[in-house]
Amino acid sequence: MKVKEKHFRTIWLKQNEEEIVQIIDQRNLPHEFIIEDLHSVEEAARAIKEMHVRGAPLIGATAGFGMYLASLSAESDKDLEQAGEKLISTRPTAIDLQWAVKKQLQEAKKTESMEEKRELLKKNAQKIADDSVEQCRKIGEHGTEIIKKISEEKGGATVNILTHCNAGWLACVDFGTATAPIYKAFEDGIDLHVWVDETRPRNQGARLTAWELLQEGIKHSVIVDNAGGHLMQKGLVDVCIVGTDRTTFTGDVANKIGTYLKALAAKDNEVPFYVALPSSTFDWNLREGKEIPIEQRDAEEVKYIQGLCEGKVKKVLLTPEKSIAVNYAFDVTPARLVTGLITERGICKAEEKSILELFPEFRK
Amino acid sequence: MKVKEKHFRTIWLKQNEEEIVQIIDQRNLPHEFIIEDLHSVEEAARAIKEMHVRGAPLIGATAGFGMYLASLSAESDKDLEQAGEKLISTRPTAIDLQWAVKKQLQEAKKTESMEEKRELLKKNAQKIADDSVEQCRKIGEHGTEIIKKISEEKGGATVNILTHCNAGWLACVDFGTATAPIYKAFEDGIDLHVWVDETRPRNQGARLTAWELLQEGIKHSVIVDNAGGHLMQKGLVDVCIVGTDRTTFTGDVANKIGTYLKALAAKDNEVPFYVALPSSTFDWNLREGKEIPIEQRDAEEVKYIQGLCEGKVKKVLLTPEKSIAVNYAFDVTPARLVTGLITERGICKAEEKSILELFPEFRK
Repeated sequence: MKVKEKHFRTIWLKQNEEEIVQIIDQRNLPHEFIIEDLHSVEEAARAIKEMHVRGAPLIGATAGFGMYLASLSAESDKDLEQAGEKLISTRPTAIDLQWAVKKQLQEAKKTESMEEKRELLKKNAQKIADDSVEQCRKIGEHGTEIIKKISEEKGGATVNILTHCNAGWLACVDFGTATAPIYKAFEDGIDLHVWVDETRPRNQGARLTAWELLQEGIKHSVIVDNAGGHLMQKGLVDVCIVGTDRTTFTGDVANKIGTYLKALAAKDNEVPFYVALPSSTFDWNLREGKEIPIEQRDAEEVKYIQGLCEGKVKKVLLTPEKSIAVNYAFDVTPARLVTGLITERGICKAEEKSILELFPEFRK
Repeated sequence: MKVKEKHFRTIWLKQNEEEIVQIIDQRNLPHEFIIEDLHSVEEAARAIKEMHVRGAPLIGATAGFGMYLASLSAESDKDLEQAGEKLISTRPTAIDLQWAVKKQLQEAKKTESMEEKRELLKKNAQKIADDSVEQCRKIGEHGTEIIKKISEEKGGATVNILTHCNAGWLACVDFGTATAPIYKAFEDGIDLHVWVDETRPRNQGARLTAWELLQEGIKHSVIVDNAGGHLMQKGLVDVCIVGTDRTTFTGDVANKIGTYLKALAAKDNEVPFYVALPSSTFDWNLREGKEIPIEQRDAEEVKYIQGLCEGKVKKVLLTPEKSIAVNYAFDVTPARLVTGLITERGICKAEEKSILELFPEFRK
């Protein structure tokens, strides 16, 4: 997508210097746009853990490139396996991370030569990224039909879409998951407006989704996470579209903390609630959403917040210094609250039968 | 309640200088504790509008004292009526504001003499404040029974209470509404812990409720507004208690934006959801919660946040500068989601019949 009118992905091999992976360091957005060089799997792991990059598909792509970086200094398959473990340990909830590492380890087994492994892992990391872009593009094509239909029902009046967190192109390699249908609908000339949940504690909505939409020239309003229920009660939301970090094959959706509350409000007000995801985000081994491990992050993320002050990005303390804070990063929205899943293969219901009809290769 | 071990109310007449009303300016809490002098109804109105004071009962008490301040320079009943209009126009949702102004205007009519009016309004302002304290004390006594019962059912294990916004003593004159049962239960030796919703955009939970609880030595954890649903899913919340800015006589509850989302989650997880209120917060003329006017406040409250940075209270920008933000201050929780109302006369169901049994004088 565009940054100041120039096309960017979120991760790529450095031009003419392909032993370096480049990412957009998302921590200081929207106030500072920084491109960061990653030279090693350690740097890739830190970029994931400290959230220079975030979002399930981008975490997957970064893990793919991270395995390639690991191969540059690896001397054996064991080194690669250890690198994979290092990457997997950074974030427990996003399933794409495990998926990408596994893909790369399989790839590495195709040859004995370390030289050839490097080449294979580079190409495959690139392929993981390219596939993600293509999946997001298709999610956009399928999802835009939902928006188009609402637009038609409203006689062309503005379609109001609520999203939580950032499941935008910054969470992926390009296009985004939840935002892909929005970008496609906008491209197709549909009049739309996005309610952007700020998404405390890390404000991925207020910082990243708002910034993305602004760069693309899409109408949006930032709201506090508390506001969505009221907006739905007042008929000001036509559809919710969110992303996910892991979805069971029965349709339970782990996503950024607070998603469950919006899904409850959507149900209570008969607003359709869609989850957009590439198939790599399905966990084909988990039946119950409550089995998904939920990451607990540092309490400082709740107690402090970062923003622009006098031209600089600064952190301010929000609570009494001595108060304790607790910081769960995700929650699980049960399938019964989800209207449908938007995947690269089309839209299905959030239930085992419907999901496996789209992805029959995962039938057991 | 206590501030650094010394007893305080939130509003009082200045000692030996009773033409001045003193308040705690709550805007810079918990970082700075500032006592402010109010000399006129204009200053009282500004204190309400700009949220030096907030919370329905305290807004009512401030309006009461504001009318007394108005009387100091008023030359006629018309001046007093204009002062009342000025006060009422500051915040549209809190019904206590209208109630207190009306009380004072009635009081002023008891005599023709301006001198005597001043004395009556002073005494009556004091009485409104004292009555509020007494009401909150009684709310505490009734509400603590709920906590005590849960404690017994849990065999004395910690009772986890979730609250939203600040319906503490800082929202009242003393004790608080939602917090009164908590303070009483704590005094009675019940083991409890409070989940404090930070309550964006103005963070009354993270700033004020956390500070109050810290001063009283009550265990608490600050959480983002997004977290409550997950905590309830995990069985980590035994009961929710919140305040209200206006409640219809049928039990629909207007309270700080986001309350509705927590009530939905409580219902979905069978967690009891109580609303604590003095009877002055009932709107005896409104049948439908959706008729309650919902204040829209400045978008800057969403785009910027205030906190402590390098020893000073500073504001930081959270969103892209050019992004629009929308800021609804309240939402309405329908009676069907409310387990019960804790009033100064006891606990009733959130339904017309049960409410009017406690307050038969409002039967029409």
